[in-house]
Amino acid sequence: MASELINRRHETDQPTADAYYPKPIKPWFTVTRPMRYMLREQRLIFVLVGIAIATLVFTIFPRSTQSTPYSDPFSGYGIRPDESYVPAIQAQRKPSLEYLNRIGATGGKIPLGLKRKGLRVVVTGGAGFVGSHLVDRLMARGDTVIVVDNFFTGRKENVMHHFSNPNFEMIRHDVVEPILLEVDQIYHLACPASPVHYKFNPVKTIKTNVVGTLNMLGLAKRVGARFLLTSTSEVYGDPLQHPQVETYWGNVNPIGVRSCYDEGKRTAETLTMDYHRGANVEVRIARIFNTYGPRMCIDDGRVVSNFVAQALRKEPLTVYGDGKQTRSFQFVSDLVEGLMRLMEGEHVGPFNLGNPGEFTMLELAKVVQETIDPNANIEFRPNTEDDPHKRKPDITKAKELLGWEPKVSLRQGLPLMVKDFRQRVFGDQKEGSSAAATTTKTTSA
Amino acid sequence: MASELINRRHETDQPTADAYYPKPIKPWFTVTRPMRYMLREQRLIFVLVGIAIATLVFTIFPRSTQSTPYSDPFSGYGIRPDESYVPAIQAQRKPSLEYLNRIGATGGKIPLGLKRKGLRVVVTGGAGFVGSHLVDRLMARGDTVIVVDNFFTGRKENVMHHFSNPNFEMIRHDVVEPILLEVDQIYHLACPASPVHYKFNPVKTIKTNVVGTLNMLGLAKRVGARFLLTSTSEVYGDPLQHPQVETYWGNVNPIGVRSCYDEGKRTAETLTMDYHRGANVEVRIARIFNTYGPRMCIDDGRVVSNFVAQALRKEPLTVYGDGKQTRSFQFVSDLVEGLMRLMEGEHVGPFNLGNPGEFTMLELAKVVQETIDPNANIEFRPNTEDDPHKRKPDITKAKELLGWEPKVSLRQGLPLMVKDFRQRVFGDQKEGSSAAATTTKTTSA
Repeated sequence: MASELINRRHETDQPTADAYYPKPIKPWFTVTRPMRYMLREQRLIFVLVGIAIATLVFTIFPRSTQSTPYSDPFSGYGIRPDESYVPAIQAQRKPSLEYLNRIGATGGKIPLGLKRKGLRVVVTGGAGFVGSHLVDRLMARGDTVIVVDNFFTGRKENVMHHFSNPNFEMIRHDVVEPILLEVDQIYHLACPASPVHYKFNPVKTIKTNVVGTLNMLGLAKRVGARFLLTSTSEVYGDPLQHPQVETYWGNVNPIGVRSCYDEGKRTAETLTMDYHRGANVEVRIARIFNTYGPRMCIDDGRVVSNFVAQALRKEPLTVYGDGKQTRSFQFVSDLVEGLMRLMEGEHVGPFNLGNPGEFTMLELAKVVQETIDPNANIEFRPNTEDDPHKRKPDITKAKELLGWEPKVSLRQGLPLMVKDFRQRVFGDQKEGSSAAATTTKTTSA
Repeated sequence: MASELINRRHETDQPTADAYYPKPIKPWFTVTRPMRYMLREQRLIFVLVGIAIATLVFTIFPRSTQSTPYSDPFSGYGIRPDESYVPAIQAQRKPSLEYLNRIGATGGKIPLGLKRKGLRVVVTGGAGFVGSHLVDRLMARGDTVIVVDNFFTGRKENVMHHFSNPNFEMIRHDVVEPILLEVDQIYHLACPASPVHYKFNPVKTIKTNVVGTLNMLGLAKRVGARFLLTSTSEVYGDPLQHPQVETYWGNVNPIGVRSCYDEGKRTAETLTMDYHRGANVEVRIARIFNTYGPRMCIDDGRVVSNFVAQALRKEPLTVYGDGKQTRSFQFVSDLVEGLMRLMEGEHVGPFNLGNPGEFTMLELAKVVQETIDPNANIEFRPNTEDDPHKRKPDITKAKELLGWEPKVSLRQGLPLMVKDFRQRVFGDQKEGSSAAATTTKTTSA
């Protein structure tokens, strides 16, 4: 049977001379001239080879193609951070080998097979004013970002634009309770930062600062993560030294109405250094001076947000005391840049992160008047207890060791904040016209 | 049947004339002449009435007859606290009606029928050096005393003499865990106080100070107890003001090796004031300066105990730095008197409790040489980090508002401590002879 099959096949192979074959139907694709050109000399194959190469490149060196484009809060405002403003990534000194080992970039402590793209970063207080801008930068860098927030002062609106991104997670959690997360970096920002909020429940403010920091330091120790504490210029209290340098021990009332925040943050620094000295945890401490920018709480009682909201609402600008007390105001993007350089750098700190540009309350009011409403009145009120008289950072250490200094002046940054506040205060879209009118008036700082 | 029974009984009642009756046996008790005297004229009844009256008196006005006699650590030392030294009880100003109501002395918030003798007082750290002397005084006053201690630095030997007393209880418990106790007063002393001990585990020192104080304040709030925090002169850090008055905010390093204790106690003060302002808890704050006396830990690294132990062991007295740094030394009985006046009084504080008698380390060494061994050598060693240069309390406030000031001078108190240390260092009984030899040498302060 088998040989018969073979024979048959032979027969079909030879064409017989006189059999009638209708004119052959052209192949299913009518081969136009270019198509014929393509098929000759294996040109199509080479196209396929090219595709293969490109696919290979993209799988090995992923670009953050999937994450939604980072919505730069400064785009369209006619302001670009200065060219010399080298984003943290390029300026990144080579992280210590020991740290890289731990995060597995050089195949260190990470179990075999757990290849990972980017860093796993948790930001406590990540739905807050500063936290959400930090999250934007980390997402833009391609990290996996976990926001932990109890939404006491944080707002979902600040991070909603990341919700569709698989690299982004949000956990509603209060840091006074422990949490287990496998991460490489911990930015610990969670704490109410404005006097109105931290005085609201002082005992809780202390718990957040002390027990919250204990929990996150315990996590850092357990998973070998690098830990950054956002401390505050309030650790200097009502300073007797001016400007304040990091080695200054401060002049803080331990039993006043602000003590829950000042002492809470000082004790958080103490814990951070004790975990570093005693348990070898990699820590970083940033002392943040007054910061302003888009997404600030509108009514959190801080002077910049107060003045802007009042000017927009045509209310008098309330100045507490004689208005001669000074503060220095840094724009939020400068701060975030400083935090990331501190985290990626090799120095523990503490580091002052602030803008040395010092303003009295009355000078600030004047800038707000120029920016929003020249006719805004000023109303004086009695000052609050323990309100510091002067506050100005000495940022020599950050300049030298982190290569960082603020770039955005008050007159550059304030309009960005006003735009955001206007949308939120009035929710209207017509800000375009009045914003254009305002920009022409801004004089350089 | 019934009437028959009645008849029979009649018969037995009448003696029949001719029946033989043996001579009657004298009653079971042979009634001697005094006994017969007693039984006549209801004299015995009056004895019983007298007994009833005395019993009544004792039940209404109990005297602390049951508690073992308070073993006065100063008895037999030929030193009596000065006559003007009015113990806290007599000097006790009338506690506020609102406080008395709560503790039920005037039948206030206490449920009906729960009559109680004396106060229910918990002393955290009650097995420690200062705590155990406080416990002695409270027991002597007839209070129900509960000692809560984790025995990290506390010692059972300090309170063993109370073990047989029903008014005394001891609970092995760490205040970083909550505890539920129905009490009227809380003396919160629990915390390692010597640098050697609190630096041993700095993170635990902070937990004890912050979480421990949170737990005890929470208890005070729940049961309506009055809460006294023993804070410390260390809240002044390395003071830039001299002497230190309570309104001075201090000069404290927040990130040094002593910070766990300094910042921990400052935050404990903050919490105490926030519970007072926010939750109306009755609080008291004492800032304790250097204290010495019997039952001090022998090797806790504090200067007085160091010098005494070294002199007894014929070792050189180690002076850190140049020896010119000053401290002021108060005897433990003075401190305990101050604490009780503060608790019973009507002022929140903080109050400095210390002895303004200021000594340099070298002067102290000289007194120790005079007291124990004139030939003891002095050995200089590098100073420890952040060691305060000067420390002297301003106690004007305690004098005026508590009617308190220290009574025992260094030269009066030191021999008492030496006696105790000698027993513990050598455990021998022959201290009697050498003690007599030493007492003749002591010159008045």
